[in-house]
Amino acid sequence: MATFVPATERRTKSPHLPFGDRRDAPFYGMDILSVLQFRREDLDYIFGVAREMRSMVDRIGTFDLLKGKILANLFYEPSTRTSSSFLAAMERLGGSVIPINEVTYSSVAKGESLPDTVRTLQTYADVIVLRHPEVGSAKLAAQYTTKPIINAGDGTGEHPTQALLDLFTIQEELGRVDGLTVTMLGDLKYGRTVHSLSRLLSLFDVRINYVSPEILNMPPELLAELNRQGMAQRELTTLSPVLPETDVLYVTRVQKERFDDLGQYESVKNAYVITPETLEDAKEQMIIMHPFPRVGEISMEVDDDPRAAYFRQMESGLYVRMALLAMVLGKA
Amino acid sequence: MATFVPATERRTKSPHLPFGDRRDAPFYGMDILSVLQFRREDLDYIFGVAREMRSMVDRIGTFDLLKGKILANLFYEPSTRTSSSFLAAMERLGGSVIPINEVTYSSVAKGESLPDTVRTLQTYADVIVLRHPEVGSAKLAAQYTTKPIINAGDGTGEHPTQALLDLFTIQEELGRVDGLTVTMLGDLKYGRTVHSLSRLLSLFDVRINYVSPEILNMPPELLAELNRQGMAQRELTTLSPVLPETDVLYVTRVQKERFDDLGQYESVKNAYVITPETLEDAKEQMIIMHPFPRVGEISMEVDDDPRAAYFRQMESGLYVRMALLAMVLGKA
Amino acid sequence: MATFVPATERRTKSPHLPFGDRRDAPFYGMDILSVLQFRREDLDYIFGVAREMRSMVDRIGTFDLLKGKILANLFYEPSTRTSSSFLAAMERLGGSVIPINEVTYSSVAKGESLPDTVRTLQTYADVIVLRHPEVGSAKLAAQYTTKPIINAGDGTGEHPTQALLDLFTIQEELGRVDGLTVTMLGDLKYGRTVHSLSRLLSLFDVRINYVSPEILNMPPELLAELNRQGMAQRELTTLSPVLPETDVLYVTRVQKERFDDLGQYESVKNAYVITPETLEDAKEQMIIMHPFPRVGEISMEVDDDPRAAYFRQMESGLYVRMALLAMVLGKA
Repeated sequence: MATFVPATERRTKSPHLPFGDRRDAPFYGMDILSVLQFRREDLDYIFGVAREMRSMVDRIGTFDLLKGKILANLFYEPSTRTSSSFLAAMERLGGSVIPINEVTYSSVAKGESLPDTVRTLQTYADVIVLRHPEVGSAKLAAQYTTKPIINAGDGTGEHPTQALLDLFTIQEELGRVDGLTVTMLGDLKYGRTVHSLSRLLSLFDVRINYVSPEILNMPPELLAELNRQGMAQRELTTLSPVLPETDVLYVTRVQKERFDDLGQYESVKNAYVITPETLEDAKEQMIIMHPFPRVGEISMEVDDDPRAAYFRQMESGLYVRMALLAMVLGKA
Repeated sequence: MATFVPATERRTKSPHLPFGDRRDAPFYGMDILSVLQFRREDLDYIFGVAREMRSMVDRIGTFDLLKGKILANLFYEPSTRTSSSFLAAMERLGGSVIPINEVTYSSVAKGESLPDTVRTLQTYADVIVLRHPEVGSAKLAAQYTTKPIINAGDGTGEHPTQALLDLFTIQEELGRVDGLTVTMLGDLKYGRTVHSLSRLLSLFDVRINYVSPEILNMPPELLAELNRQGMAQRELTTLSPVLPETDVLYVTRVQKERFDDLGQYESVKNAYVITPETLEDAKEQMIIMHPFPRVGEISMEVDDDPRAAYFRQMESGLYVRMALLAMVLGKA
Repeated sequence: MATFVPATERRTKSPHLPFGDRRDAPFYGMDILSVLQFRREDLDYIFGVAREMRSMVDRIGTFDLLKGKILANLFYEPSTRTSSSFLAAMERLGGSVIPINEVTYSSVAKGESLPDTVRTLQTYADVIVLRHPEVGSAKLAAQYTTKPIINAGDGTGEHPTQALLDLFTIQEELGRVDGLTVTMLGDLKYGRTVHSLSRLLSLFDVRINYVSPEILNMPPELLAELNRQGMAQRELTTLSPVLPETDVLYVTRVQKERFDDLGQYESVKNAYVITPETLEDAKEQMIIMHPFPRVGEISMEVDDDPRAAYFRQMESGLYVRMALLAMVLGKA
């Protein structure tokens, strides 16, 4: 986690690729484990491929770039959205999927270790997407398989494909990332989404406002990490002081279960709900994002506001995941 | 529900279709929500396409009419039969499927609303099949998505594709619908299948006998609705008086759980079980149907009787669903 | 079970095949229910096709031999490994899959009989793979459908595709089966895997050692059956006397739950765990196999030993299942 190694120097899994082709397929055989593995030029490359994917989907819907390739979609935790997104990405590229969602009852439930499970799956599949409740599980899995692992969330650890699609959405909606003010709202303590995104944003010239109830503040060690990289950061408990300057309002869910004192929950929850009234003080050219699912944090009346970018954000997820699958399989 | 608008005048979801192509793809972009949306000429059209599908499956098994299209198969309630039928229909047409069966634990379980879920899925898929326990859910979903919704059962509401395949089976087995006597047997109160089918039959010159224990009678308001359309209807508690005149015997399950008084259940249950003896009084050219699963309502000895049409009825489901998918996607 | 009928004489399900093509597709339309249906020449044929499959996968990954064919993967018990293996096999052959894993809640849960379920699925699919907890279920299913049934495990009964892949692994790893000494270790009473494999081995000139705690001995009636066929068999409670002569060490899991007396379990469990130290007395050219999942029976330090064949064994499963699917569908 500490040492930063550029993606282009860490290509270790290239079981079938002739050496001379490397330059043409810069992410071939790579694991996608953490946002920390990307440099700005890596992001430019990924987003360029994602734009091509969007253009192909717009024109012809589905195409056979990954025909004959098989994805094992291994979800130890349920996540309809993320698993469907990878499944659709693989299908739009003409590939096939082995969906493994019911790991709660299965050989895994019989006590099989993650290393054994991924070594089994690598005999069937060409790439493995892994969602697992434990921090570090994706890295562990990657050590035991010769096929690329894509981390689709490892506990409170990382969710790099979500952070990539978030950043891609910002870039596409506002045309740039440098110079923006990003305000993150809600549960900033447990949300791996905001942690991964803030790390990615630290590669850019960006200011971040963190707005949350005190018990759900950003982890101090993450603030320190970002501070060392020169990120301009500010912590608040209310949105109104920073909304007028905000270019990107990133909303997350404040979960009742996080509060010991339900009275405290009741007193703060409405402060973190976005309504058309909230947005009266916002810029005309800003965007509202949310990793979804939402349960009331943004009222449905906001959906028709052109600044509501969260459904377009989901769509971006499809293109970014298509790009990543094609790249690690050496086809982009 | 009251206002009847012909299908051909309600084409609102045509995001990609050039206007001039309308006549060639009459159901393009349409939702399939209720049997009430069909006129007789619509049924003729659907059944014509279904016959072509059967002919193609007979000759070559699978073909690439929907290659590149993705179906989201969204089942909030388990239904192996219906979900498998749509899945097979899409695969026989060369398309792909995102199966979402485990909605009990997923973002839906986390409290996500149906509108949010379908707006998510529309970013991945080209058409959405929805099974949901609440009446009106398919209509609600359709209001929030630009992709066609096919209602695969909304609580005690509608199950239009089942009714269409039932009617198609009658047409194909007996060569006509006009002039037939249809006898519906069993639980006529809660069975959405018989409700949807009787509504479809009201477009034809048909007589219906309803045979059920009194506590499972057809809903009076539905009887009234059909009566206003001139349908000849008769209610009975035993089958024998009407069996000799019956062309179509439509059997449904009488569920123990519907009875408060188990003694009452025991006293009536055998009156609604079909055996080879029952059929001694039946016509030679009649058919027996059942929406399945069955649990004893038709004894297995009846299966080899050529009048037992229920397995052929299932097969018809495949062709009708293939037809509907191809039609709403503008390919038939 | 008693009468042995060569596979080539029992071809009864050939609904579409012209009679004259029989010789070209010797397993077309056949059910794969039991290892007892195979003669040595059948095994040679299957393994020859499996080798072709491996060669094709090595060269091009996936190919369209079964394009347009649909497999119904019907699992009444969870088994991620076996169901994923069949799914991958079908996808690598260009076919489609209807996965049915959640039978605990579904029409099956509503009480539908296995015959009704398979007669439903045969209207959608071209071949059915069945895992079911009851002995004899695969045979029952086969009697009710015109489509080939492949038994993927019926309770404590048979698991023929596992036995075939086990035998194929032995053949490929050691170059022959005749003349080998096979030692089976662990739970030999309940393990259908070792039962099926020992029956297949009885077609060869092989010696078998059974090493197990007494309460988990091989069933006496199976020992007698194999004895009548001239198999050289020996029962032991410890591995060390026979390890030096062993060519194939087949390890299975000793489950705590099998013991009434946990003290007894604790006293024996370590005697059946394979470590690098255990293998000091083993041949250099022997192999270690395991049907997986493992939970401690083989320590992970053994994994890098070239004699550890269990991951290659899994991969063999893919090729054998591809071969069987292609064969029963008349394409090999």
